Amino acid sequence: MALIVQKYGGSSVADADRIRNVARRIAATADAGNQVVVVVSAMGKTTDGLIELAGQINESPREREMDLLLSTGEVVSSALVTMALHAMGRPAIGLTGWQAGIRTDSLHRRARILDIDTSRITEELQQGNIVIVAGFQGMTEENDITTLGRGASDTTAVAMAGALHAEQCHIYTDVAGVYTTDPRIEPNARKLTEISYDEMLELASLGAKVMHNRSVELGAIFNVPILVASSFSDEPGTLIHGGAQMEVRNKVRAIATDTNVAKITVLGVPDRPGIAAQVFAPLAEAGLSVDVIVQNASVESATDLTFTVAKTDLQKAIALVRPVAKEIGARDCVASDQLAKVSIVGTGIQNAPGYAARMFETLYRSGINIEMITTSEIAITCVVAADHVQKAVQALHAAFELDKPEA
Amino acid sequence: MALIVQKYGGSSVADADRIRNVARRIAATADAGNQVVVVVSAMGKTTDGLIELAGQINESPREREMDLLLSTGEVVSSALVTMALHAMGRPAIGLTGWQAGIRTDSLHRRARILDIDTSRITEELQQGNIVIVAGFQGMTEENDITTLGRGASDTTAVAMAGALHAEQCHIYTDVAGVYTTDPRIEPNARKLTEISYDEMLELASLGAKVMHNRSVELGAIFNVPILVASSFSDEPGTLIHGGAQMEVRNKVRAIATDTNVAKITVLGVPDRPGIAAQVFAPLAEAGLSVDVIVQNASVESATDLTFTVAKTDLQKAIALVRPVAKEIGARDCVASDQLAKVSIVGTGIQNAPGYAARMFETLYRSGINIEMITTSEIAITCVVAADHVQKAVQALHAAFELDKPEA
Repeated sequence: MALIVQKYGGSSVADADRIRNVARRIAATADAGNQVVVVVSAMGKTTDGLIELAGQINESPREREMDLLLSTGEVVSSALVTMALHAMGRPAIGLTGWQAGIRTDSLHRRARILDIDTSRITEELQQGNIVIVAGFQGMTEENDITTLGRGASDTTAVAMAGALHAEQCHIYTDVAGVYTTDPRIEPNARKLTEISYDEMLELASLGAKVMHNRSVELGAIFNVPILVASSFSDEPGTLIHGGAQMEVRNKVRAIATDTNVAKITVLGVPDRPGIAAQVFAPLAEAGLSVDVIVQNASVESATDLTFTVAKTDLQKAIALVRPVAKEIGARDCVASDQLAKVSIVGTGIQNAPGYAARMFETLYRSGINIEMITTSEIAITCVVAADHVQKAVQALHAAFELDKPEA
Repeated sequence: MALIVQKYGGSSVADADRIRNVARRIAATADAGNQVVVVVSAMGKTTDGLIELAGQINESPREREMDLLLSTGEVVSSALVTMALHAMGRPAIGLTGWQAGIRTDSLHRRARILDIDTSRITEELQQGNIVIVAGFQGMTEENDITTLGRGASDTTAVAMAGALHAEQCHIYTDVAGVYTTDPRIEPNARKLTEISYDEMLELASLGAKVMHNRSVELGAIFNVPILVASSFSDEPGTLIHGGAQMEVRNKVRAIATDTNVAKITVLGVPDRPGIAAQVFAPLAEAGLSVDVIVQNASVESATDLTFTVAKTDLQKAIALVRPVAKEIGARDCVASDQLAKVSIVGTGIQNAPGYAARMFETLYRSGINIEMITTSEIAITCVVAADHVQKAVQALHAAFELDKPEA
């Protein structure tokens, strides 16, 4: 008998009909001879509604009470999905996050799971119950309720699958799986049947919002295969796993984009040791992530230092960098936010010859200027003008034959 | 420094404006130098909405999951009221029922409080916090969430006041206090400044729905003075207490009515011992309450046995009584549901001369036929035709001078 953990997102449980649909899928999984633990999100826009209500009462509500408030949404879903299973004659029990044994630190609204005490769930499974757990929440050592951050029901599910040594974790959502690129940008985008944890992490960090990175990281740590699929169809979805055959594939798997990109250039930086550290230290202290960093070749002992930050952080970043630039004797400091990142993603492509060259040539032939380049183990990223993103994705999707079925 | 427990009902926290209003009242109580623990109900019609949603999914949902579902409504209120106090700069903390230490038995949807572990609340009060507790809920020994029955936030508040040895318990609701009778029936009805626990119990059991009986009983057990008042005005309200001066007052305090009344008469019952027990045993087994019981004088060794049940239970009751009537050789079994109870209530009136006589005479002068009579320590009740209720109440209200201010 296999143990399967399933997670259903907010749109999958948005009303009574959809809850019944979800219950049918859960019952089918149980009827196939599996033990089933289900993690549910809040119904539809419930969480947004609660946040708005809180905002009417307090412009910056304390995070502890926000957690108390928001955690109720998932508890409602857990009760209703359980009732739907009862209506179908299936034994089931609904549990809050804390009843399910999820212990977290006390960083309210972004708590981390410290530990899962699986004794209650194990007992319920042994009694033949399907267990429906409220996602996104846990409890501190002081018995205070925490939430794990927006969309973190995925995290609950993967962590639960890890703690229970589940065979698979199914993440049911409103997309059918992981695509070679955003289908709204490239209609020829194709759904992948499988992808590695590392590739998925690159895709997520580069703006492909199928799953949160924390969930994928947890999947990798516990080696839990994660199936991402739609709860509205029976299409097969995409399996995220650490299978060995991927390690040697060396193939472009997908194209990711990120339009939340701005760049800052410090012009005429004196070329002496420690300068870069001086520029980036205040940004790190303020919690601002610096992404792509390029230092141009030195001309007469002065260089230009360029780096990207999230577009949403640009004003904060420039205010921090400008005084430092003055202090170190740089000539000027300029910014631009009409930018985007386009990346090709695939395990091992950095070390395989030809991918970078083909990427640059494809962009060149499409008349797209590359402003910056960065590489990682499994991705090559070019910063281009924001209005060139669609053209770049379509050209790369064709050049790397991503519309063709997998071998 | 006095400790005050306050309870705010659903209509008092129905929206953001009302929640702010409640927060102002709580803050004023704290500013007056009191420690304050507040018990809140779910916002407005939240509980009804959740019950309807559950009904769309399962016609008879399991009570355990109904409790899981319904308990969220009060948790939302507790978070929001706490946020409103924070917005006013007051230190406050929101707690669920189980966080507040409320332990119950496992009779879901009608659980009884077994014990309150006040350690968390006491600690929060010592730290200077106003404590906002989600009413209506608790937790079993097995860590399952229970609810205490409709309207039982009153019970939470009074039990909490008892456990904390609070000076007073304030029940804020949408009525201004306890009246001499229903103001919709008798416009001259007057608000009482005080009433005894026993009188209040009679009023509640006779259909005056200001507070639930369980809360008043608890108040009497713990000797917690309960102030019932409106959260929408600063009028003084009614204090329910056990003050000694009431014991000797011997005065009609109020007139209660109950229109949920039906009567069943078993005709020609053989006059031998044990017959009444045979008739009432199946009703007791089915959980149906029998109220007024009258056995007419015996005529030729057969009597008529008449009793009242709630009108809403009549069909169930008659189905149980008919076969028993046949079995014991009664002649027939008839029912009527066009009835109501009218009662005069006041400590000691049963033993004081003249009250019963004045009641019967007043009804007689108004042309109202009395179908049945019953008395208790503090009430005299007449069953009359339902369409005579208003006339009866107005006549009795005048006869016992209830429109005159208290001495």
